[in-house]
Amino acid sequence: MSHRIAVIEGDGIGQEVIPAAVEVLESLDLDLEFVEGDAGDAVKEATGEALPQETYDLAADADATLFGAAGETAADVILPLRDAVDSFVNIRPAKAYPGVNAVRPETDLVFLRENTEGVYSGHEDDLSDDLSTLTRVVTTSASEKLAEFACEYVDGEGFSVVHKANVMRKTDGRFRDAVVRVADDHGVDTDEVLMDAFATRVCLDPEQFDTIVCPNLAGDVLSDLAAGLVGGLGLLPSANIGDDNALFEPVHGTAPDIAGEGVANPMATVLSAAMLLNHLGYSEESDRVETAVETVLAEGPRTADLGGDADTDEVTQAIIDEL
Amino acid sequence: MSHRIAVIEGDGIGQEVIPAAVEVLESLDLDLEFVEGDAGDAVKEATGEALPQETYDLAADADATLFGAAGETAADVILPLRDAVDSFVNIRPAKAYPGVNAVRPETDLVFLRENTEGVYSGHEDDLSDDLSTLTRVVTTSASEKLAEFACEYVDGEGFSVVHKANVMRKTDGRFRDAVVRVADDHGVDTDEVLMDAFATRVCLDPEQFDTIVCPNLAGDVLSDLAAGLVGGLGLLPSANIGDDNALFEPVHGTAPDIAGEGVANPMATVLSAAMLLNHLGYSEESDRVETAVETVLAEGPRTADLGGDADTDEVTQAIIDEL
Ligand SMILES: CC(C)[C@H](C(=O)O)[C@@H](O)C(=O)O
Ligand SMILES: CC(C)[C@H](C(=O)O)[C@@H](O)C(=O)O
Repeated sequence: MSHRIAVIEGDGIGQEVIPAAVEVLESLDLDLEFVEGDAGDAVKEATGEALPQETYDLAADADATLFGAAGETAADVILPLRDAVDSFVNIRPAKAYPGVNAVRPETDLVFLRENTEGVYSGHEDDLSDDLSTLTRVVTTSASEKLAEFACEYVDGEGFSVVHKANVMRKTDGRFRDAVVRVADDHGVDTDEVLMDAFATRVCLDPEQFDTIVCPNLAGDVLSDLAAGLVGGLGLLPSANIGDDNALFEPVHGTAPDIAGEGVANPMATVLSAAMLLNHLGYSEESDRVETAVETVLAEGPRTADLGGDADTDEVTQAIIDEL
Repeated sequence: MSHRIAVIEGDGIGQEVIPAAVEVLESLDLDLEFVEGDAGDAVKEATGEALPQETYDLAADADATLFGAAGETAADVILPLRDAVDSFVNIRPAKAYPGVNAVRPETDLVFLRENTEGVYSGHEDDLSDDLSTLTRVVTTSASEKLAEFACEYVDGEGFSVVHKANVMRKTDGRFRDAVVRVADDHGVDTDEVLMDAFATRVCLDPEQFDTIVCPNLAGDVLSDLAAGLVGGLGLLPSANIGDDNALFEPVHGTAPDIAGEGVANPMATVLSAAMLLNHLGYSEESDRVETAVETVLAEGPRTADLGGDADTDEVTQAIIDEL
């Protein structure tokens, strides 16, 4: 079965790491068709819109989308793109790879972040010269949907539910109750952790956690915290999963300081492509790509962010050679 | 001039560390009068109310309040107490002390957390069986008040403004604009950091930050993250400052596992008492208490949380001996 992959480079090093990941995908000789779309600062400059309707439609219609990064317009690109693919969960693994300098080398976590509501639902008002409000939204249905996904994802293991229901009693209380109820129905163990306590505890001992299920903003901040523990955003992939399609993106940004020099580390995007393969059912190929990245990390050429002097292309070829 | 200090032990080790800190304060022979009030789980059990009106009034009428910790009822005690003292800023230093095992020993940060609004303003509704909302509130006036305080606090240095205005455009945008405008008026340098990026960067290199000014929930979570970097909550003091009164509390909780055994570490509470002294104008005494704690940390007896076997009383006496 042929799959149609939307490819959106965006700005900065997105234009270097996305072609690298596409090269890796092409080297696998699968039946994948790649179609390109534009988004980001440069497009906004040229057209007035950071995410043109064609690009939105491209992502909405594709089987999966691979996105690089956007600069100043990041929120105007990524939030509508998550909506285009009807994504209800953002999967953010944060794993410290051997040989990479990490604050907490034993970190190996996966965040399952609710991807549609919380403060991101975005209803804000200026009520007076002095006062603005934001309506934070939590529904049982979105919480349950995330929990159903989580129960399947953990495959017999338990997960942690992270929230701030001691302050946000009705909203995070609803989230917590729904997630725990679904987990109980599936016989999945859960433990509850307040989001502030989680921030302390994950620094002190990341091994006490595995999979973390949390609301949207908590997932944003706590997964970026975990990124700090594993040594930075440079290697972290992510997936935005919907019922019928999905979007994959490195967690890092456009890296304006090195953009255009051909020296960006393509690994986070290649690992995002591995998540894409897994999502499309190519789990064996997905594992091979991940293993190839790990092998190159352990013994192959490295880009400057990892202390080496290889360029993007050398690292990409080394990954392809390992496949 | 005599000062009236409300003393609220609360639950668990609050009943051990508060008497220890009061002993340290008494040893200074200042004109302080201590009046006791009850709050917490045990009071709720007995009276149905976690924070009796008398205790609220006691804190509201005192020149300063020293609070220990509350268990399950923590939010029902601490949030109204912050209100009782009209506190507009929560000061949370996170400093790694020499000789204490820290994830990031170079950490030396102070968070100035907005203490009245954000998601804590607490207006929540269940709008249907499926849907709850929370109204997050940001005002220019509260943001400006925090910023005025911050400009004085940093005493010629700059500070970082941490927010999520790329998503919460009107609310955090209002906060950011107000804080930066006040800082500009005072000739104080600011740099802006998105709260998720802050979480990554502070793990990778805490020395790039000094004073952080942020909304309520951001301050809660990010200061607890910093607590993880300095080795845990055990040594961290905090202050809630209002125009006419203030409340001081260790950041740690009730520690039910060791409560009642007389082995709790009193240092976070003693350091909170040092902040209280400073607030009342006893800055020389405040410095002496802090130095005494540092000396005992470096060469004196230690409680079990720091790898020693001293009890609360031995550590308290050692601090008093250093004064
Ligand atoms: C760019 C921004 C809107 C986005 C978010 O907050 O979700 C980013 O931080 C992320 O986590 O992908
Ligand atoms: C107990 C809770 C309501 C409180 C808060 O969220 O402010 C606590 O976490 C703190 O930071 O003092």
